[in-house]
Amino acid sequence: MKIAVLGTGMVGDAIGSRLIELGHEVAMGSRTNNNEKAMAFVAKHNGKATARTFADAAAFGEIIFNCTHGVASLEVLKTAGEQNLNGKILIDVANPLDFSKGMPPSLAIANTNSLGEEIQQAFPQAKVVKALNTMWCGLMVNPGMINGGDHHTFISGNDANAKETVKAILMSFGWAAKNIMDLGDISAARGTEMYLPLWLRIWGATNNGAFNIKIVS
Amino acid sequence: MKIAVLGTGMVGDAIGSRLIELGHEVAMGSRTNNNEKAMAFVAKHNGKATARTFADAAAFGEIIFNCTHGVASLEVLKTAGEQNLNGKILIDVANPLDFSKGMPPSLAIANTNSLGEEIQQAFPQAKVVKALNTMWCGLMVNPGMINGGDHHTFISGNDANAKETVKAILMSFGWAAKNIMDLGDISAARGTEMYLPLWLRIWGATNNGAFNIKIVS
Repeated sequence: MKIAVLGTGMVGDAIGSRLIELGHEVAMGSRTNNNEKAMAFVAKHNGKATARTFADAAAFGEIIFNCTHGVASLEVLKTAGEQNLNGKILIDVANPLDFSKGMPPSLAIANTNSLGEEIQQAFPQAKVVKALNTMWCGLMVNPGMINGGDHHTFISGNDANAKETVKAILMSFGWAAKNIMDLGDISAARGTEMYLPLWLRIWGATNNGAFNIKIVS
Repeated sequence: MKIAVLGTGMVGDAIGSRLIELGHEVAMGSRTNNNEKAMAFVAKHNGKATARTFADAAAFGEIIFNCTHGVASLEVLKTAGEQNLNGKILIDVANPLDFSKGMPPSLAIANTNSLGEEIQQAFPQAKVVKALNTMWCGLMVNPGMINGGDHHTFISGNDANAKETVKAILMSFGWAAKNIMDLGDISAARGTEMYLPLWLRIWGATNNGAFNIKIVS
């Protein structure tokens, strides 16, 4: 498929690289069409990706991954253009971490709202699915790296068909169906985003970001 | 030991019952010394517990469990009396869930503060340890109920010795040392309290509250 990855940081790189490996056509979106990291990404993948502006990447993509910094996501998506998002699945991987007040970061949006909901509200015709935002990016695209792949990831969103498509993409990344938990509508993004402070504390206590949670019962 | 359990709801009942089973002397604290639930608790345990006011229970306890509703905890602890808390270990199991704005609840305190921190700040000479607030009360005191007991619980607090004592109590409940994760000082309570919205969503998705998270890496 034609997939846009907005954001050229570690998360965008990990997801974009995995998508190319799986045979998708990837457009890396950033503020300019000659962004240094995006150009390096294209070079690394022997031209199997393109570097585009946010708007051009979003126009190209049948599916769009939001891998931008959470505090910048709404502005980036406005730059990408509502007409380029409408009717499309928008997979929101971002967390609204606010580092401006020191460490550990707080959340710029939380408790009675979430970034996932704000994006859905700003772009009502996009099919926003919150996913993968509860772990280090290496595990997002390669869950088998730990515990034989037996740990959990969450999806939430208002469109059932969009969630089915996202589930299929996650399974292509290596996630077992039983480990993909549908938490309901997009307001469940509050839950997965508010997990980040605990994630950061566990990381701090263990000095190892390559961990995830497994739900046991 | 002499242990006070403040709060006569499900959590206080579960913890108080387990403490009695382990041979401790338990005082159940509530607003009055003839609270209906506290009296039923005393009767159920053949007089091995006492029903007291918050202040009398706190005065009795060498260790104090806060099992009250999180939005009422500060007021309850003030009623219990600072002089009855000073120098003691105060195990804070409460979550500041605010049900006043409908379901799902939001948190009355979050993000840049936590109930655990507010309690520590209000009672600087108490040794506040946040613990057990990330699961259904049945699992708090009987982790072996699921997955052979192999799942995680967290502690945080400013006093290292107090955390060691709490760890010993958790181990007496059935927690393996390797599954008790020390997240650092009391500000880590932000992490465990902010996990609650995700906990509630997982509960909603699975219709089973008898679950917990296991950290895998």
